[in-house]
Amino acid sequence: MGIFLALVHHPVLTRTGTVGTTAVTNVDLHDLARAGRTYGIERFFVVTPIALQLELVERVIRHWTEGAGGARVPARKKAFSIAEASPSLDHTVERIRERTGEEPVIAVTGAGLAQDTVPFNEAGTRYRNSTTPLLVLFGTGHGLAPEVMQRAHLRLPAILGSAPDGYNHLSVRAAAVVIMDRLLGDTGARPGPGAD
Amino acid sequence: MGIFLALVHHPVLTRTGTVGTTAVTNVDLHDLARAGRTYGIERFFVVTPIALQLELVERVIRHWTEGAGGARVPARKKAFSIAEASPSLDHTVERIRERTGEEPVIAVTGAGLAQDTVPFNEAGTRYRNSTTPLLVLFGTGHGLAPEVMQRAHLRLPAILGSAPDGYNHLSVRAAAVVIMDRLLGDTGARPGPGAD
Repeated sequence: MGIFLALVHHPVLTRTGTVGTTAVTNVDLHDLARAGRTYGIERFFVVTPIALQLELVERVIRHWTEGAGGARVPARKKAFSIAEASPSLDHTVERIRERTGEEPVIAVTGAGLAQDTVPFNEAGTRYRNSTTPLLVLFGTGHGLAPEVMQRAHLRLPAILGSAPDGYNHLSVRAAAVVIMDRLLGDTGARPGPGAD
Repeated sequence: MGIFLALVHHPVLTRTGTVGTTAVTNVDLHDLARAGRTYGIERFFVVTPIALQLELVERVIRHWTEGAGGARVPARKKAFSIAEASPSLDHTVERIRERTGEEPVIAVTGAGLAQDTVPFNEAGTRYRNSTTPLLVLFGTGHGLAPEVMQRAHLRLPAILGSAPDGYNHLSVRAAAVVIMDRLLGDTGARPGPGAD
């Protein structure tokens, strides 16, 4: 049934630590649609409860799937063919249930997560061909709100990087692509059995 | 001596296949400075021969290192502390020679590359603590011009993704971050010996 992504704009943490809503960023839609399509993601949901933002996301998707953008850049049309606007996490789960007939397992990740995590390769292998869909959530702003983290069935490890001082501030775009690569990327050039 | 990155805006291939110059994209500077800093990259060079573009890049870097941006967002100040504008690949190589006293090994990657490549983990292990600096080039537009590809000493594999139809259109931002992760990312959750 495959792997699904959701870029969550609400509920997320704001700079001040309160729970709020972030604005949709156009480059996130492009980078995650392109990466999602490249890594064989089933659907990429853009989650925002704000009516005008949903309308904006739908207009961007239409421009690249049915409109002038897609006619000019066919590769971008294919990328946006997996993108979908969604008003909430509940609605996203329902859409996946409609498509697959199964309740998705919800996975989260975050710079904070360290304990009780499932390794990326294990999660990727388990769900890429499973009849159970996996929904991976990415939080904008300062990350997914606690209520969303608590709802997750599966925790993926944090992306740690390798800065000597532990600096770790990837954009959500960057973190999401790294996670897709760790879950689904060709491991031909990776350490271990996969290495050439 | 560590690993250096250069985002190359000239000479690169244009949509029509000719060799040309692309415009600097602000989000590339932010995403690659943040990712470079997260993965412990020594310096991140933004290469463009256009005087006004160099001035723009320098102004953006100053805004985040010495200006109001850095004062407001300290993490972004640290990210941009590794960023540097450079007019050419030759100048970039010279700057690395000044810093390290060594001639850098130039590495390229590209969706096209398949043969005679060095696996990411091997290249990362070889150069992260070597006295010889590694300079990894990323081409904007439709990729690095042949003259640059021919100048490379080392070829990294292409990032292949896993789309059933072979679709492969990551943004340069996304591809660069995946390559940093494959070269330098914590492999604790990867296949093989590193796996938990």
